[in-house]
Amino acid sequence: VLRLPNLRQRKYHPYSLTDLYYFANLVKLIQFGIKKPFTEVIKANIGDAHAMGQRPITFLRQVVALCTYPNLLDSPSFPEDAKKRARRILQGCGGNSLGSYTASQGINCIREDVASYIERRDGGVPADPDNIYLTTGASDGISAILKILISGDGKSRTGVMIPIPQYPLYSAAISELDAIQVNYYLDEENCWALNVNELRRALNEAKAYCNPKVLCIINPGNPTGQVQSRKCIEDVIHFAWEEKLFLLADEVYQDNVYSEGCQFHSFKKILYEMGPEYYNNVELASFHSTSKGYMGECGYRGGYMEVINLHPEIKGQLVKLLSVRLCPPVSGQAAMDIVVNPPVPGEESYAQFIKEKESVLNNLAKKAKLTEDMFNKIPGVHCNPLQGAMYAFPRIFIPSKAIEEAKAHKMAPDMFYCMKLLEETGICVVPGSGFGQREGTYHFRMTILPPVEKLKILLEKVKDFHIKFLEKYA
Amino acid sequence: VLRLPNLRQRKYHPYSLTDLYYFANLVKLIQFGIKKPFTEVIKANIGDAHAMGQRPITFLRQVVALCTYPNLLDSPSFPEDAKKRARRILQGCGGNSLGSYTASQGINCIREDVASYIERRDGGVPADPDNIYLTTGASDGISAILKILISGDGKSRTGVMIPIPQYPLYSAAISELDAIQVNYYLDEENCWALNVNELRRALNEAKAYCNPKVLCIINPGNPTGQVQSRKCIEDVIHFAWEEKLFLLADEVYQDNVYSEGCQFHSFKKILYEMGPEYYNNVELASFHSTSKGYMGECGYRGGYMEVINLHPEIKGQLVKLLSVRLCPPVSGQAAMDIVVNPPVPGEESYAQFIKEKESVLNNLAKKAKLTEDMFNKIPGVHCNPLQGAMYAFPRIFIPSKAIEEAKAHKMAPDMFYCMKLLEETGICVVPGSGFGQREGTYHFRMTILPPVEKLKILLEKVKDFHIKFLEKYA
Repeated sequence: VLRLPNLRQRKYHPYSLTDLYYFANLVKLIQFGIKKPFTEVIKANIGDAHAMGQRPITFLRQVVALCTYPNLLDSPSFPEDAKKRARRILQGCGGNSLGSYTASQGINCIREDVASYIERRDGGVPADPDNIYLTTGASDGISAILKILISGDGKSRTGVMIPIPQYPLYSAAISELDAIQVNYYLDEENCWALNVNELRRALNEAKAYCNPKVLCIINPGNPTGQVQSRKCIEDVIHFAWEEKLFLLADEVYQDNVYSEGCQFHSFKKILYEMGPEYYNNVELASFHSTSKGYMGECGYRGGYMEVINLHPEIKGQLVKLLSVRLCPPVSGQAAMDIVVNPPVPGEESYAQFIKEKESVLNNLAKKAKLTEDMFNKIPGVHCNPLQGAMYAFPRIFIPSKAIEEAKAHKMAPDMFYCMKLLEETGICVVPGSGFGQREGTYHFRMTILPPVEKLKILLEKVKDFHIKFLEKYA
Repeated sequence: VLRLPNLRQRKYHPYSLTDLYYFANLVKLIQFGIKKPFTEVIKANIGDAHAMGQRPITFLRQVVALCTYPNLLDSPSFPEDAKKRARRILQGCGGNSLGSYTASQGINCIREDVASYIERRDGGVPADPDNIYLTTGASDGISAILKILISGDGKSRTGVMIPIPQYPLYSAAISELDAIQVNYYLDEENCWALNVNELRRALNEAKAYCNPKVLCIINPGNPTGQVQSRKCIEDVIHFAWEEKLFLLADEVYQDNVYSEGCQFHSFKKILYEMGPEYYNNVELASFHSTSKGYMGECGYRGGYMEVINLHPEIKGQLVKLLSVRLCPPVSGQAAMDIVVNPPVPGEESYAQFIKEKESVLNNLAKKAKLTEDMFNKIPGVHCNPLQGAMYAFPRIFIPSKAIEEAKAHKMAPDMFYCMKLLEETGICVVPGSGFGQREGTYHFRMTILPPVEKLKILLEKVKDFHIKFLEKYA
């Protein structure tokens, strides 16, 4: 008889990332089941650019291929600037091979390239390669830092402040580490802005039952797509300084800013510009990734984090923790190097690189506007501007009859809505309840990654579905 | 002022894997410090084949390069069998790109190849792709399974039985998960054999203070290099069946068997052959990796686990847990595919592949014998036969004067010994206390990966050092 170990109940978020796979299974069932009123499933549920047809950036793949099979370094069909980078990366590898372990913090020369990138990005604010840690995607870095910061002993549990709506990696990690999730709500009426008064409310209430130590920010926002203003970031930093909170800045969408008048400001840069009282005291970890931006290389599981003002003792613990997984995948480290060290003017590959990069980003900007406009034409749907990132998070009106039916099926109302949408149109999106939302409001997250023509059809289908849904449950 | 969050003390093993990096730092210090009596540091502390000069298997790298940069599929300089495999892998990827996320369990066609490999290896014992999980190296799989099996609630904590000496990933994971490490000792006098009476002793004693649920086996052994006999595996399985223990079989060195008369038997195969009463009831997870064998592709972080008889509810939890990290690195998945699906007779690349494979394995066999013989010629050193894996774990006599001096430095005696060895010869090995050993005995672990000529010099240096050490502390 199979025995069921008396499992500690793992309190993953009810519709966490994992539900991508429940959805995928559902999709399989649908495909092999009875005939459905659609011919194709469109997976708009996950930020998986290449799966939606985006082409890899040629230069990145050339460099990684050269590192993988160094015989190609003699091939005339690869450009010199790619070969130069590949040689440099291989020199950083034991035995000049991607197959060797690297230091658990990552290859030195790549960490140097990351530091140079950050300095360029932040207009000269210094960055120390010793503060850079290469990671297995951003998720790995976020989990590791949370693990180190959350202490389970003593009287009160650690509180971690996260935005609502949030990317569910945070709620899953907090729950797994047995910490307390402290919600602060983004202001939907005000384009999902982060308001410091709301931070203060959340913190003060939380102090009654936990010890809040960490403040997580996602900028540009996932799933909400807002881009924070400089003023807002200053306010948040001042608040973190005042309240002695460790700042976690999830900045993986830093290259994905579309709206006019919006600009990405890194927390690191603003922190520096606020002066030494802040810059020498506020603890900050910032995360980046190969998966988003214009590269979209999710499968390489590449990323880095920059951590400043970390207490040396904790830094020792962090390095120790990271070394248990030996090292991040080395081809992911190589891919990360190209994200931070792409071709520059004067190099052979520059023209093609810029063309490919701008094509991806211009397309995303176009689709962001298109999606906002189309959603706002649907009755009972409201969508804030998609200033950045790669998702729409429209608010949807769900009639009370539909809410009742959802309850009868023991489903959250927006889950019920998304399931119906999938069954009737083949479009796969994620219910807002997977990210958190103000009670009584309903949303879903949809990527803007499908090609423009497909996205238009998709949005038309959502519109038709929504109108019929309102009629049916009126 | 930098604040030190009141960290839960993380009880990693005192000389865990992480000490590789302390050693590396030490090496740096030595290199930049005063002149030392050696010109080169030899890192014999970690199973990092390519870093020690082993060449990658050409076919594996060709396939991964083709997957990375599919333009190469048109190149006449790549063989057709490599192209065929690359096309198949790319067809399993979203958008035909290594840059897409895969299912968190791994790409379907690669899991099918893994299942076929296991069936061939085990003489036809069936393997189900649905029981295969691709992982980020074997460590990731082991950590995930332990996380799922260890429950922290209730009156008694979960006990996990591990061999002593052991690979310190186990002790680190057990400690981090707040479980109880239950030591069973391998029999050094009997070539590090696993004795079921010792398992029973350990289990019975442990039952007084915890709830033992998991039994970990490393075969071929790390750091001890023994290869278990068929009889021994049968005994272990019977014991696990009797005591309702979940078996974790770390079989990453399954291709690394050298001694005559020794043969690798998988736990899965023996379990099957013991009949349905065992095969339908004993829960077993087995691990494999791209990092060891003859491929030595550590940097790709590729691996798989096969889990049988897992309760469906736990399986659901496992998939959920794995999906938090989205998916294993896709180039590592591709590398794993070639480990389990290399060229076969009749294919274009077969001859070169076999030549490369046998060269690596014959060399390792030669070095295993050489190392054993050389160590056993040193007075005060005893080394069991290196039947498999890629390490020697000699027992060393440390004079009581040296033990006293180590204590004065607050060091374990074998740590003291290894530090002296490093300082005086540039040879970096890991003290036995990092793996665990019977009290009052001392060992170190040394890889046999350096090229033969270098290995000979290294062993001569160890010999000279050891003799001087004995004299100095006589």
